[in-house]
Amino acid sequence: MVGIHTRTHGTSYDDKGLTLDAEFAASAQSIEEFLERAAPEVMIEVTTLNPTCGQPAISHISAAFSRGVHVVTANKGPIAHAYATLREQARAAQVEFRFESTVMDGAPVFNQFRNNLPGVNVLAFTGALNSTTKVIVTAMQQGLTFAEGVLRAQALGIAEADVSYDVDGWDSAAKGAAIANVLMGASVTPALVKREGLGELKGEELRRLAAEDKTIVLVSRGTRTADGSIQLQVTPEILPRTDMLASGGGTSNVLLFDTDLMGTIGTVTVNPGVEQTAYGLFSDLVDIAKTL
Amino acid sequence: MVGIHTRTHGTSYDDKGLTLDAEFAASAQSIEEFLERAAPEVMIEVTTLNPTCGQPAISHISAAFSRGVHVVTANKGPIAHAYATLREQARAAQVEFRFESTVMDGAPVFNQFRNNLPGVNVLAFTGALNSTTKVIVTAMQQGLTFAEGVLRAQALGIAEADVSYDVDGWDSAAKGAAIANVLMGASVTPALVKREGLGELKGEELRRLAAEDKTIVLVSRGTRTADGSIQLQVTPEILPRTDMLASGGGTSNVLLFDTDLMGTIGTVTVNPGVEQTAYGLFSDLVDIAKTL
Repeated sequence: MVGIHTRTHGTSYDDKGLTLDAEFAASAQSIEEFLERAAPEVMIEVTTLNPTCGQPAISHISAAFSRGVHVVTANKGPIAHAYATLREQARAAQVEFRFESTVMDGAPVFNQFRNNLPGVNVLAFTGALNSTTKVIVTAMQQGLTFAEGVLRAQALGIAEADVSYDVDGWDSAAKGAAIANVLMGASVTPALVKREGLGELKGEELRRLAAEDKTIVLVSRGTRTADGSIQLQVTPEILPRTDMLASGGGTSNVLLFDTDLMGTIGTVTVNPGVEQTAYGLFSDLVDIAKTL
Repeated sequence: MVGIHTRTHGTSYDDKGLTLDAEFAASAQSIEEFLERAAPEVMIEVTTLNPTCGQPAISHISAAFSRGVHVVTANKGPIAHAYATLREQARAAQVEFRFESTVMDGAPVFNQFRNNLPGVNVLAFTGALNSTTKVIVTAMQQGLTFAEGVLRAQALGIAEADVSYDVDGWDSAAKGAAIANVLMGASVTPALVKREGLGELKGEELRRLAAEDKTIVLVSRGTRTADGSIQLQVTPEILPRTDMLASGGGTSNVLLFDTDLMGTIGTVTVNPGVEQTAYGLFSDLVDIAKTL
């Protein structure tokens, strides 16, 4: 690692490789200055999500491509907002662009199709992709308040920096848009997703549903309509607790794809955490190293 | 396709490529005669499962390797009985050996680890891997008899040629052994799996369990013990219907891996059929074509 550039902790460089006790000096004035000085082969972009515009990650990634630098990101903003443009920039610069950690915390979703499912087309997808809302709903079913549920998700380190991005469905919308852009050839942004958040969730209602063996899950859905356009939505759905989307406790995620050749196939992660997001970055880095 | 060799329908050759209305002449006398005459680059092995010994598939595959022919198989016998030996033969002959369809009907299980999860070690696995028993249990919960459940599975084309292989847990044991051999470095055979089949399943008991929101699932489990040995079992387990292993209707399969770096991650297939098994063979063939 030859450089680390942060918003609030300064910037550090060492072209022989940074150590764990690296010292941080004043921040580079711009991403360009940082890339110029660090001269990396690969940039790992992990700024926090701004779901309404995908910045500053998009311009960071663009700056890397324009210098012939490969990019790995865990930030779904750029994929949800500008995937087609960034993909073309990467192609033109003949560099790799990987983003496995943007959906399902590093579990192979994009690489599944890229590496393992040749010729398979995605017709639709359904996912329970937001861990924070799952943790909140579970907490409220156990008698805690909404705010206590949020605190529990934050203690797990899984909530977005601004938790309203989770609760209002922006995180799920961004993941849905990312999936549609990469795997269904869409050119959408999160704002184009029909989005409904958890809203004014009542503990009483959740406990009544639990008594009927039902629960509420914030579900992301995408389908290709007859005219070829892609419809995306995020909605809190009342589901039987036996539904696959409701199964798995804690922060578990489920993502199912309806495909033409492989029927309905999906990936589940049981209680993923930040280590799995970090692993996704690592796996992308390994994949890029294979191409170097 | 330059040759098709069958047990009961004869053998057909065409070095310009067989057509759909290819005529079949008398069977080749041996796999060696067939391979000599057909001279393929890749052999696709799809004989029926003999779970007690893995033959004749093992000798077919061996014969191919000794002629420098790549092999794709959907037959779990060879992987469950002789994986380490066959892998070494393939390495020595510098040919590829692929078997994605042997577990979960073509859904990426082995390719998931090979291509997408670098450095990840499997610590344990848990799977609901046998569709036939799932269909039988569901049928009996609906008031049908065991025999009617078997007929339903056969009508779906998913039952093993000898259905006792499914019901007595041999199919699940072979899949468990295959997973352990390939992904956990084991050298086991299905006979070494602690195996209990569905047994004398009572419709009455199943309906009583259903009233308590429980069901019975034939579960395959594998774990690495403290001394490094691998323990495998197949057991009918009483599970809450909300358990991920019990979720998904029809022929759905679920396979979860506990790993060191990627936490618990799994694959699900919803209602897979023979087309998905065929797709698995195709995806293996594409993977081999990339190496040619």
